Amino acid sequence: MSARTRASSTTEADYPTTERSRVRRLHQRGSYARSDLHAILDAAPLCHVGYIIDGAPYVTPTLHWRDGERVYWHGSAASRFLRQVDGKTVCLTCSLMDGYVLARSAFNHSANYRSAMVFGTARIVESDNEKTEALRRFTDGLFPGRWETLRPMTAQELKATSVLWMDVEEATAKVRAAPPGDPEDAGIRVWAGVLPMRLAFVSPPRARARAAG
Amino acid sequence: MSARTRASSTTEADYPTTERSRVRRLHQRGSYARSDLHAILDAAPLCHVGYIIDGAPYVTPTLHWRDGERVYWHGSAASRFLRQVDGKTVCLTCSLMDGYVLARSAFNHSANYRSAMVFGTARIVESDNEKTEALRRFTDGLFPGRWETLRPMTAQELKATSVLWMDVEEATAKVRAAPPGDPEDAGIRVWAGVLPMRLAFVSPPRARARAAG
Repeated sequence: MSARTRASSTTEADYPTTERSRVRRLHQRGSYARSDLHAILDAAPLCHVGYIIDGAPYVTPTLHWRDGERVYWHGSAASRFLRQVDGKTVCLTCSLMDGYVLARSAFNHSANYRSAMVFGTARIVESDNEKTEALRRFTDGLFPGRWETLRPMTAQELKATSVLWMDVEEATAKVRAAPPGDPEDAGIRVWAGVLPMRLAFVSPPRARARAAG
Repeated sequence: MSARTRASSTTEADYPTTERSRVRRLHQRGSYARSDLHAILDAAPLCHVGYIIDGAPYVTPTLHWRDGERVYWHGSAASRFLRQVDGKTVCLTCSLMDGYVLARSAFNHSANYRSAMVFGTARIVESDNEKTEALRRFTDGLFPGRWETLRPMTAQELKATSVLWMDVEEATAKVRAAPPGDPEDAGIRVWAGVLPMRLAFVSPPRARARAAG
């Protein structure tokens, strides 16, 4: 995570730093580097899409995938969320919780995390071919080679599915990956450190029972 | 998860079903039961808060905690996010990814998850006593008894911290916790099933090395 990235040193490898995306607080945690953003988008299985309906904010969780600078998500063609966001500005945020940070004072307690906040304009994929291809890349991105093994999608299934995309217009990554930030309190006799967390696959109950038995 | 909850059977144990919160798609996955909402809010370490600044949607991840019908979050008093949302309508969403659901067709692939979408009006806690008490409940809620062991907060630290709260006005829980929904394709020879996932504590590297050595 190249936390040294700054507006003054913006290159093609960075997203533009704008009023909307500029990290204001704890800017040492921020990055506008494309590689940092991509890594977080790719590591998070789901995102939270923020959008506006009738002047009110909504946040919907959904699975997403990335292809270059384009982020995709999908759902039912009958979904209010998907129909409403077409053509609208959305904020798509991915967050990974990496641990609790326990300090000697309440104030210095924190969390280790990786987050990516992406701004863009959502669009519905119109062509059936593009839609199918996007869904193939989604499936094979998670489970390489799986698409070819599946029963093909029917025309009705394809029609019932909406795929949305947006190009990343502006984006910010934020990362904290550090021990407690309270060296001045190190003399205080209370345990301090990081309790690491991770979202991981676990054995299903039957597999566990078999392994134990 | 009482998925049978419906507007027609709303009781005090339920949140009101409104235009904003009514589950439109796959309503068998939805619930308005307070107990279901509370369980998801309590299980998720972080939430995503959606809000509007200058007509544009933003989604910020943050740690949250719950006290009855009140949801809290906090941050720096200098945070644009916290200053901007005071008095505004926000949508606070928690999501837990419980697994990938692999079916015999792309169409029936899915995810198992628990999500809670909560609507309310964000407010800043004004009184220092209330602020301190809220932070104590946050800390002790995660790590029971820890608050008393810590160096007390200084007046400066308290001033630098904003705590926000909102009462749950409307809310929806959605849960999928099931095998693939494609019994009609069971004859197709491709593996189908659930790959369960969980956000869990992991051993820090040093502890792992010690255990292995």
